[in-house]
Amino acid sequence: MTGSVSTAREGPLAFVTLAHPGKLNAMSRAMWRGLRAAFVALQASDARCVVVRGEGGAFCAGGDISEYPDFRFEEASLRDFHETDVWGGLRALLDCDVPVVAQIEGACMGAGMEIASACDIRIAGASARFGAPIARLGFPMAPREAQLVAQATGALTAREMLLEAAVLDAPLMLARGFLSRVVQDADVAAQALASAQRIAALAPQAARANKQALRRIHEPNWPPAPAGIGEAATDLIAGAYRYAAGAEHREGVTAFIEKRKPVF
Amino acid sequence: MTGSVSTAREGPLAFVTLAHPGKLNAMSRAMWRGLRAAFVALQASDARCVVVRGEGGAFCAGGDISEYPDFRFEEASLRDFHETDVWGGLRALLDCDVPVVAQIEGACMGAGMEIASACDIRIAGASARFGAPIARLGFPMAPREAQLVAQATGALTAREMLLEAAVLDAPLMLARGFLSRVVQDADVAAQALASAQRIAALAPQAARANKQALRRIHEPNWPPAPAGIGEAATDLIAGAYRYAAGAEHREGVTAFIEKRKPVF
Amino acid sequence: MTGSVSTAREGPLAFVTLAHPGKLNAMSRAMWRGLRAAFVALQASDARCVVVRGEGGAFCAGGDISEYPDFRFEEASLRDFHETDVWGGLRALLDCDVPVVAQIEGACMGAGMEIASACDIRIAGASARFGAPIARLGFPMAPREAQLVAQATGALTAREMLLEAAVLDAPLMLARGFLSRVVQDADVAAQALASAQRIAALAPQAARANKQALRRIHEPNWPPAPAGIGEAATDLIAGAYRYAAGAEHREGVTAFIEKRKPVF
Repeated sequence: MTGSVSTAREGPLAFVTLAHPGKLNAMSRAMWRGLRAAFVALQASDARCVVVRGEGGAFCAGGDISEYPDFRFEEASLRDFHETDVWGGLRALLDCDVPVVAQIEGACMGAGMEIASACDIRIAGASARFGAPIARLGFPMAPREAQLVAQATGALTAREMLLEAAVLDAPLMLARGFLSRVVQDADVAAQALASAQRIAALAPQAARANKQALRRIHEPNWPPAPAGIGEAATDLIAGAYRYAAGAEHREGVTAFIEKRKPVF
Repeated sequence: MTGSVSTAREGPLAFVTLAHPGKLNAMSRAMWRGLRAAFVALQASDARCVVVRGEGGAFCAGGDISEYPDFRFEEASLRDFHETDVWGGLRALLDCDVPVVAQIEGACMGAGMEIASACDIRIAGASARFGAPIARLGFPMAPREAQLVAQATGALTAREMLLEAAVLDAPLMLARGFLSRVVQDADVAAQALASAQRIAALAPQAARANKQALRRIHEPNWPPAPAGIGEAATDLIAGAYRYAAGAEHREGVTAFIEKRKPVF
Repeated sequence: MTGSVSTAREGPLAFVTLAHPGKLNAMSRAMWRGLRAAFVALQASDARCVVVRGEGGAFCAGGDISEYPDFRFEEASLRDFHETDVWGGLRALLDCDVPVVAQIEGACMGAGMEIASACDIRIAGASARFGAPIARLGFPMAPREAQLVAQATGALTAREMLLEAAVLDAPLMLARGFLSRVVQDADVAAQALASAQRIAALAPQAARANKQALRRIHEPNWPPAPAGIGEAATDLIAGAYRYAAGAEHREGVTAFIEKRKPVF
């Protein structure tokens, strides 16, 4: 058993579930590949919102350390793990134009922080805990992953997590601007669902275009990832107004003027 | 009546007032052009601080949707609206080297968020409300505008506003780092004025140079806006020390050493 | 007496002390050069964590204004001061791969804000005060310095400090995300030491690699600083996985699997 990443659909919503029983959903290589496959499929789907969650009361406690001796101690295989498996999964999540809500219960550590950092909305339970104490494991966070986390948490929090191996609680992560909402533990799933339903009732093409624009703020000017990982460079401004004559745009504006509720 | 943007001077201060009666100062095309004209003129003026405010208890509730059927449903005219009218106004505000205080009362939505995001200091009343729920209108925020807002609010807040159509209150926007101060509704104008007076008593060329330096942090690496919109590329470091022999610099340092109050 | 920057070692820890008696440790030119020398040496040392602190209950109250008439009123010498002396010191601090904890007591103003902004972890006493009211002195913050501060404080706080000459207290700087922790004044040194000890017990090469990755997020795309100031451009991804076969990496992962405490 090396864990799994599965996708379920309920109408316009998709639920991506990280599952690795007995390991607080620690990400195995197979799970990173599963994460990539899940989000490549979702990007091509008609889903209007995705909820990412963990099974059994944890979000994700990190990487599956039991696999590490197989590949970590040789540079080429280590690079392949981070640049292809891990970044392949995270990049597919980042490149997904469908809005993504993170439903965060319990441990959100290491790989869990990376996955949560790539989501749009983050809703956590009051007892959730956040960190990336891999300095205890003797290795750094890979550069792309460290920047993803730092851009989501702010540089100060990332430095506390990586240099002090600090573990932060949910109220502090709310104050640091990483979390959208902190709710009672028993309400996390319901609140994540409510957020997803709100999003799904809104204009789907508009959401996709907003995600495309916002994604560009934080693009580091780096060598490209291995072939096939990451979206093609496109001219964001050139395509930005092609929606003009679209049905969704016309419906929204017209409904407002006619003082009725739009149907997207 | 399509609303107006007017400028008044009181000594070293300028007051730019958004006015669109009955529409909570929603921005019409004429108002975006007026905003641009106002800030192009202020940049060339001897004003030492600008207060941007709305008439009648609201800052700005968004765009003037009644105009949208005239131009939104055709790509070229939609592009011209966003890239020339809207971005022309916002870019003139961003390019203004004179410090700008946003006096935010009531609704600060959509276009209002964009205008507030381009100001330096943001002072809001306790009952002010913030958002950009245009996903209800079936269209995305234009890319330059979305990045402006996200850089001012943080990516998380921008995603809540654009993807969830969330409306956030003033205390939350203070906690998110968007607002400088939240004061009682009745005190917003007085507190914005006090901030402007403090700024106006300080060295004006220093303020301009500080704004030039800070502006560069967030310059996206994008295709240039239409001709005439946006400052020329200049070498910030090359010009950074030309103030050395200036009267303002000499007065400030000399006054400190002589233990007297400087007069700028 | 023009002040001093001295370094003391205690096992894996280094303590860099800013001292300018009677001037709340205001930075003289000699001190900026001393800061650079200290961090160039620390980068080449086996120190695992550095604490930066001020002598006598203040962190650093700014620049040594008594020196300013000697060089500030001529462009070439002013440029040389900021680009070589000040940026030389700050850049050496930023380029130091060893984690740096700022122990902030009392005044943290101007040059003090710049030095604190270049540290990784910031721990302040409840009565510490923060600002950069140089607009009272009639001059702007130099561009590289302004961007350093703004990236650490957020743009809003930097604009308040530079345009309003605002002075902010420690609880507000905690809320703004600049400070890691605010503690009782009497506990600042003990808490900074505790942070440094935690960091020093963790994997030192991992810390260095994490700092290299995080540093790149905020590199402005600017003309290079004068020769000798600032690290050489390197390909971060190319070197990111060379640690694979290293002892530290193997020890950390192996210790975890063997359920024992790693020794780095």
